[in-house]
Amino acid sequence: MKQHGSLRQLSSSLQCRQVVIHFDSISPIDGKALISCEFLLLGFGLLESGCVSLKNEVNIMMKNVIDIVFGGITYWLFGFGLTYGKLYSNPFFAIGYFAVDADLDEMGPVFSTFLFQLSFATTATTIVSGAMAERCNFRAYCLFSLCNTIVYCVPAGWIWGSHGFLNTLGAIDIGGSGAVHLVGGSSAFVAAWMLGPRLGRYDHGNEPLPMGSPTNALLGLFMLWWGWLAFSSGSVFGVSGHKWKFSARAAVTTINASFGGGVVGLIYSYIRKKGKFDILDLISAVLGSLVSVTGGCAIYRPWEAIVIGAIGGGLACFGIPFFDWLRIDDPVGATSVHVIGPFCTTGLSAFWGVLAIGLFADGETLLSLTKGRAGLFKGGNAYLLGVQTLAAVSFSLWAGFITFLLLWIINKFIPIRMEAHEELLGADLVEHGIRRSGVGVSRALSALGSHPNFDIEAGSAIGTNPGHEMALEKFLKDKGSLRNGNLNHEPLSHITNTSIAWAK
Amino acid sequence: MKQHGSLRQLSSSLQCRQVVIHFDSISPIDGKALISCEFLLLGFGLLESGCVSLKNEVNIMMKNVIDIVFGGITYWLFGFGLTYGKLYSNPFFAIGYFAVDADLDEMGPVFSTFLFQLSFATTATTIVSGAMAERCNFRAYCLFSLCNTIVYCVPAGWIWGSHGFLNTLGAIDIGGSGAVHLVGGSSAFVAAWMLGPRLGRYDHGNEPLPMGSPTNALLGLFMLWWGWLAFSSGSVFGVSGHKWKFSARAAVTTINASFGGGVVGLIYSYIRKKGKFDILDLISAVLGSLVSVTGGCAIYRPWEAIVIGAIGGGLACFGIPFFDWLRIDDPVGATSVHVIGPFCTTGLSAFWGVLAIGLFADGETLLSLTKGRAGLFKGGNAYLLGVQTLAAVSFSLWAGFITFLLLWIINKFIPIRMEAHEELLGADLVEHGIRRSGVGVSRALSALGSHPNFDIEAGSAIGTNPGHEMALEKFLKDKGSLRNGNLNHEPLSHITNTSIAWAK
Amino acid sequence: MKQHGSLRQLSSSLQCRQVVIHFDSISPIDGKALISCEFLLLGFGLLESGCVSLKNEVNIMMKNVIDIVFGGITYWLFGFGLTYGKLYSNPFFAIGYFAVDADLDEMGPVFSTFLFQLSFATTATTIVSGAMAERCNFRAYCLFSLCNTIVYCVPAGWIWGSHGFLNTLGAIDIGGSGAVHLVGGSSAFVAAWMLGPRLGRYDHGNEPLPMGSPTNALLGLFMLWWGWLAFSSGSVFGVSGHKWKFSARAAVTTINASFGGGVVGLIYSYIRKKGKFDILDLISAVLGSLVSVTGGCAIYRPWEAIVIGAIGGGLACFGIPFFDWLRIDDPVGATSVHVIGPFCTTGLSAFWGVLAIGLFADGETLLSLTKGRAGLFKGGNAYLLGVQTLAAVSFSLWAGFITFLLLWIINKFIPIRMEAHEELLGADLVEHGIRRSGVGVSRALSALGSHPNFDIEAGSAIGTNPGHEMALEKFLKDKGSLRNGNLNHEPLSHITNTSIAWAK
Repeated sequence: MKQHGSLRQLSSSLQCRQVVIHFDSISPIDGKALISCEFLLLGFGLLESGCVSLKNEVNIMMKNVIDIVFGGITYWLFGFGLTYGKLYSNPFFAIGYFAVDADLDEMGPVFSTFLFQLSFATTATTIVSGAMAERCNFRAYCLFSLCNTIVYCVPAGWIWGSHGFLNTLGAIDIGGSGAVHLVGGSSAFVAAWMLGPRLGRYDHGNEPLPMGSPTNALLGLFMLWWGWLAFSSGSVFGVSGHKWKFSARAAVTTINASFGGGVVGLIYSYIRKKGKFDILDLISAVLGSLVSVTGGCAIYRPWEAIVIGAIGGGLACFGIPFFDWLRIDDPVGATSVHVIGPFCTTGLSAFWGVLAIGLFADGETLLSLTKGRAGLFKGGNAYLLGVQTLAAVSFSLWAGFITFLLLWIINKFIPIRMEAHEELLGADLVEHGIRRSGVGVSRALSALGSHPNFDIEAGSAIGTNPGHEMALEKFLKDKGSLRNGNLNHEPLSHITNTSIAWAK
Repeated sequence: MKQHGSLRQLSSSLQCRQVVIHFDSISPIDGKALISCEFLLLGFGLLESGCVSLKNEVNIMMKNVIDIVFGGITYWLFGFGLTYGKLYSNPFFAIGYFAVDADLDEMGPVFSTFLFQLSFATTATTIVSGAMAERCNFRAYCLFSLCNTIVYCVPAGWIWGSHGFLNTLGAIDIGGSGAVHLVGGSSAFVAAWMLGPRLGRYDHGNEPLPMGSPTNALLGLFMLWWGWLAFSSGSVFGVSGHKWKFSARAAVTTINASFGGGVVGLIYSYIRKKGKFDILDLISAVLGSLVSVTGGCAIYRPWEAIVIGAIGGGLACFGIPFFDWLRIDDPVGATSVHVIGPFCTTGLSAFWGVLAIGLFADGETLLSLTKGRAGLFKGGNAYLLGVQTLAAVSFSLWAGFITFLLLWIINKFIPIRMEAHEELLGADLVEHGIRRSGVGVSRALSALGSHPNFDIEAGSAIGTNPGHEMALEKFLKDKGSLRNGNLNHEPLSHITNTSIAWAK
Repeated sequence: MKQHGSLRQLSSSLQCRQVVIHFDSISPIDGKALISCEFLLLGFGLLESGCVSLKNEVNIMMKNVIDIVFGGITYWLFGFGLTYGKLYSNPFFAIGYFAVDADLDEMGPVFSTFLFQLSFATTATTIVSGAMAERCNFRAYCLFSLCNTIVYCVPAGWIWGSHGFLNTLGAIDIGGSGAVHLVGGSSAFVAAWMLGPRLGRYDHGNEPLPMGSPTNALLGLFMLWWGWLAFSSGSVFGVSGHKWKFSARAAVTTINASFGGGVVGLIYSYIRKKGKFDILDLISAVLGSLVSVTGGCAIYRPWEAIVIGAIGGGLACFGIPFFDWLRIDDPVGATSVHVIGPFCTTGLSAFWGVLAIGLFADGETLLSLTKGRAGLFKGGNAYLLGVQTLAAVSFSLWAGFITFLLLWIINKFIPIRMEAHEELLGADLVEHGIRRSGVGVSRALSALGSHPNFDIEAGSAIGTNPGHEMALEKFLKDKGSLRNGNLNHEPLSHITNTSIAWAK
């Protein structure tokens, strides 16, 4: 029965490719898609490092590395189980999968889901590092990064775990508007508020401080853009049935939303800056639009995505001056971008990113992404809008409260705010021994030189080669002593003699 | 009939994965491939920003963002329909698909094609931004970016739309040598000519001006390199029949062509610069080779690709001094790279990238990429070479003429050339309020200070933290006043008091 | 027999997607995966350019371009055949596939394998460029890059070619710990030793010199991180049977190993630097962990990967001061990272990356990755550990010896060490005519001005626009002459007149 054998072989080949193993309603994806998703992390890292002043640029990249290393190890140890654990679960959390491992029968779906969710978890953490930039103690941040997995994993279980109360109620969050970005943003808001503004931040008024590297910030935006396309389309990825079609749709709505957000950002900046185009406004608007559309990416129509993105982008733009007016200092604008709506325009079209699903969701029945329910504008009733509101409120309250608790406890052991003299010298020098010239570090060093806590060892500036400087000194000295002697003699040969002894 | 059901299920699974839905002969690809393609955009952005002087670096990245936002929204609104529309079509253009949307039955192929073509369209636009760098008014560029979709979408329909006259005649352009890069390059040529050279460009002779960030330019080259592999192999991507084999071949010919171009660039530079290796020569040569091979990537043999790439790379190298001799100033070398041949060595091996297909194309019958026709060197007759020549001429004339028309009209409303004082100050400061130190901006500010049109607000330089400078001032002042008093008092504690009120 | 036809069609569709064509036990992958792999190259390039002093930043990026162009062309010409050739083979090398090409029946597997192996080959070469940074003559490096393919391709054949003696003995190296990274690292060690330390390197003691661009180095780390996930999971990629499950496992063990390495790096730095976190320590540790896990990525358990990565990362950290104590100068730390163990702690847990396979390998029978053998800790006997040791020794000796031979021969024609005055001026200026301000180049120029070999033409610094400076001069002169005349006259209009002649 060759045909049967061949068929069975085909069937098994397909099933493994299908990758849709009904694992808690998450569609696992393969390693390559994961890598595209990781662009989100790289993008956030670059954006953050581009937005802070140069003397903190390396420090914030290091915080992103820490987010992966510490955030990753705790996610592996117990975070994944908080979302998907099978040892014990109630509607609010689950336990299990400690130190994630899997035998052959579970290996595929468990590891794939782990990888995809890991990139979500580290993204949620990374958002916070932006809000804490330039003034957070690095060791305190390391501790926070170790504990932070709890902030993300519990609400992710609410919406994506089979035990979760929001999942049971029918709340929808395809690409993580709520569980990733609202959680990350609420956490960022609380962290920024607890740290307080950077020294002298508002002495010049509310205008943003100069960016450290606007080119890197824009480079980060590009990476976020492409990463988001993978994030969104990966969220519904699969080849069975109609999945791939919705995956393509998710990519189109994602990019379309960013068109809407981008246009709003440009208009906003044009008016506010009287004809100039501020790059932070544009970046915020594009990110805001991406954040707002990703929750329902596969269940919107392209034109609706433009509207949703435009509103999301607008809220992100208006959020920046609003938070500055509140004197909550967030160098990267993480708070306003990631909690679009809720905090900057409380009560008014609240929690836009999550709520839009309750308004615009298609009630499609093919993938049953919405369990047959439709948004208010698509002939559904107010139920979906209701549970989405509940989800948005739950996410923000949880993330805000747990972040406060964690930082409050950490602050008892290690003060989360850097000391003033450290902040003035910059975290690159203080935490990593990296000295940058031309941005006021030398001036701060000499001004603070007599400070009692001062024990900073300031080496050579980056980019220079102190060894060469010493060699040049020696050369000039030798040349001077040779000037009255043999002029054909090449003093530089002294230097090179030692280095290529093997070739003699 | 379990077996039948299983078979049908398999069959439908496969068909959705096949993604070869006979949609105007374009093979749609999935979101991940799209993202790799977007590296072209990121690569071009970085390359351009690395090539211009530092005071325009952010501005050119912003133009790339604009290309996506404005170019994308118009492509969605009507551009896609100009290539693939079904409402009305004649051999020269089509109409339809306004505000692209699709129901379930068309969702897959339409959205996939839209995404892939969108990355082609924005690439064609992005090429132009390089040629207009450092002297084009930003608002005029925004307008151009809004209209520019017409420059690409109409000729793309000629060659890829089922209605197109070049398609009907049998012209071939697999990865967009003609429809993307010849169109983009011709457009760039006309735009660079209309804007005129940068101020003082040729006062020092024809040698290129210093680059702003050669490392970023090389980083951009790397991204273009990898993006191109995706571009080329994605152009014939598919899993049915033999497609994947040709996809692998397309990747090999693409990388091989760049070996040829790279070697030529190194030799060219070695001779011209008397032993030095100019990075712009190398970048141009590699890009030139990629541009020249992509049109026929899947239908060449690997060694032929090296030859084609070497010629393409050589033309790109010789194009730069040629254009400089013509006094057409193109900071990024976009014109010579992207219109390899046609303008720099008119009539002589014209339009290399598109013509090579008429010479080297395999007449394979498996995918029927050439409709059974072979190139002149492969036993075919001159027909294919003829239609390729027609295609190359049509693309360049169309793109050049429409670009002239668009810029001529835009210039009536907003002068496309920046004012001289704006150009001297740099677009970063003038358009985006970003001030960079160490590259002559301060000198230009003081020299132009009394200019009647002068209303530039020059803030703090990027990378610095003016808030910290104020805090340091205050600290030094406090320290001075305390010197005769209590020496144990730490004046910095004044500063920190306010920020952590919650922790008390 | 419609059903039969449909079945056959399905079957052929699947087989082409399977991509597991039993081609010398390598699973070919598609172009997109290749592109992810190429991130390794981009990552190494960025990491290297970030680690060297600024006056050599472009030079090292150029060396990476050379590695692709020259390394690629020789790999295509004869390198691929040294690993997989079928014309002639003995257990130590093979010959064949000169100027790789393939007809339709072989096109898929040959081209796919070629692409994947090409990225391995160029990676092995690129590692060396880091160790030779800042003092290697560029032309000598070009020659080395042309010959270097032999260093990689021969041992790759030992382990992956069907003829190879290590393959026959049952040695395992899934992701290239041995054939790529041990080979590259041994080669780097010898090259760094032959070149000798940079001028004045140890005049200040053994502490690392300041990095040129730590942000770029961290950006490179991020890219290496994601690239490695693709590298590892791509090494076992496939859809048939259980391959995709092992691919997901490979990604999990890879990322987990980096958690282990990262934690060790942070602790190591915290102790060594007394509370500071050195970024080079962290980068080395993460890379060390990735290098050590990749050889057996698919056959470890996640927690074992953490242990393996932690040991690998620790060896990389301790390797840096060890090599500095030996006075072998390796600006990028390439040697210690890539030959983890063997050279820095000779004999003691030697060649960790390759040996770990002999300890931890699962004896799974599904894919038969280990031919049924298990590691010592998994119930196997010492056989596997024995052949892994043989493999590690063979790889290092071969790579070290051939590299010495190649560089020794090249040195007869072109001295591999730059002249001292060139080194002091920096390779960017000397080799590429790129002048950077603020890092001591001007001082070196004036100090060395009277040197007999001195013929450096020092142009304008990067980032500036000398044309604008001339235009400003002219403007100021004109303004001066007009001061007593008509004040309403705008002297700048003189400048712009010429440029927009067409608009009149």
